[in-house]
Amino acid sequence: MSARFGERVRAAIDARGPLCVGIDPHASLLAEWGLSDDASGLREFGLRTVEAADGRVGIVKPQVSFFERFGSAGFAALEEVIAAARAAGLLVIADAKRGDIGSTMDAYAQAWLRPGSPLEADALTVNPFLGVGALDGAFDLAREHGKGLFVLAATSNPEATVLQRSVSATGRAVSADVVSVVSARNAEHTPAGEWGSFGFVIGATVDWTDAGLAAFTPLAPILAPGFGSQGAAPADLRHRFGSMSSAVVASESRSILSAGPSGLSAAIDARVAEYREASRG
Amino acid sequence: MSARFGERVRAAIDARGPLCVGIDPHASLLAEWGLSDDASGLREFGLRTVEAADGRVGIVKPQVSFFERFGSAGFAALEEVIAAARAAGLLVIADAKRGDIGSTMDAYAQAWLRPGSPLEADALTVNPFLGVGALDGAFDLAREHGKGLFVLAATSNPEATVLQRSVSATGRAVSADVVSVVSARNAEHTPAGEWGSFGFVIGATVDWTDAGLAAFTPLAPILAPGFGSQGAAPADLRHRFGSMSSAVVASESRSILSAGPSGLSAAIDARVAEYREASRG
Repeated sequence: MSARFGERVRAAIDARGPLCVGIDPHASLLAEWGLSDDASGLREFGLRTVEAADGRVGIVKPQVSFFERFGSAGFAALEEVIAAARAAGLLVIADAKRGDIGSTMDAYAQAWLRPGSPLEADALTVNPFLGVGALDGAFDLAREHGKGLFVLAATSNPEATVLQRSVSATGRAVSADVVSVVSARNAEHTPAGEWGSFGFVIGATVDWTDAGLAAFTPLAPILAPGFGSQGAAPADLRHRFGSMSSAVVASESRSILSAGPSGLSAAIDARVAEYREASRG
Repeated sequence: MSARFGERVRAAIDARGPLCVGIDPHASLLAEWGLSDDASGLREFGLRTVEAADGRVGIVKPQVSFFERFGSAGFAALEEVIAAARAAGLLVIADAKRGDIGSTMDAYAQAWLRPGSPLEADALTVNPFLGVGALDGAFDLAREHGKGLFVLAATSNPEATVLQRSVSATGRAVSADVVSVVSARNAEHTPAGEWGSFGFVIGATVDWTDAGLAAFTPLAPILAPGFGSQGAAPADLRHRFGSMSSAVVASESRSILSAGPSGLSAAIDARVAEYREASRG
């Protein structure tokens, strides 16, 4: 069995810092990079981003929707990009936000987390609208193979507030319930002092108090979109995440990718240095 | 521009009844059918199901996760299955439960609803955890092309209750909020007396009162999983959905698919007759 995902994330952050490079081949970015808006453009975009990330960061996050836009040909490109990233020793978080029940959810987990699957990644983002319990088959499969899940908990887009801050029969907000139930899963299987393998998606600009969130145990990775062009800066990380800040995976896409293929490596280097500086500040 | 999706669903139900045949190539069903558990097995399973559905029902619903399990090769099989169904005049609901924000959500909508996309279906199931407003780009794209969306509103799995019955700042349960906001989108664009093109997923065994749901306008299609092997019978349809029952798309998978390739047509015929009988009862 592979090392536990929680510990693999911790090692990646220890070695390279929190920056996670998003692989988001948006049509407008493909055009900026001089690539065609088709599966071969996606492939080129993804492989060049992996090449620039290799040795500079520990984690990459392909955004699945931009590959899905081209159907099976787009998925073939994604398979190559994921394989190249994993071969380079990068941790790959497939940002697919899948969510279903029973054997249907199991099939998603098998697609993204089963060793030998053509789409095999290290972790998958998942959606808890059908209940965290509906994801149990995915938790089991992930644990069995040293893989991880990031469960959507609190996002920073304004349209999300009404639902995610609704109050459940437990008296807690939806976001807090998700954190509580997932943390209980981590507690069952995480050796003392290690990180849980089931993390959360919590936007970098979310106000934890407003969202009903509090520090949780066991510590588990927090995938935080919203750094870079969406408004949060590396210097904000410790302030925003407090005692949880060591577990943040800071995801940036456009702020890095808009440097274009020739400027990509330098953009990543500069950003990694900013996170390093901020962690000392 | 194509006819509006809401009216296309109404016409399909008028012509053939509410039964929607799920295309769920679960590993155990592939084995029962004597097919290999790989992309060629999926393709064969899907095409045979389409062939049996053709002329018997109006709507089919491929379950995307079972195709995704085989990555790009599975998606290539799905593309063939969807194309065969649409060529036969069947309405195709891609059951993918996608949900994201902004341009990422737009890319999912383009994948499944844009004319000419390799995965082009007639409608897509979507997940509102990030807010119904986060789906607005998909609403716009669907409307532009005469396509539909089915928004997860109230599911019947027990793990879903805590989240979906949480109470929002509006004073309503999450499920009721989803129905309210989506119905407002329908109201903006639905001619009087027609059906909205943005429907809901509401489990066949959900108790509407417990779930905080009530009849809504404009009428819009309700995709109801849970008929067949999950516990609801055709005779329950009018009782469970009341004044909304004419808009129900009754989805069945295992109850039909377990008849195997040689018994499939007869199983569909028998089930269609049961719904016809129940609607007279």
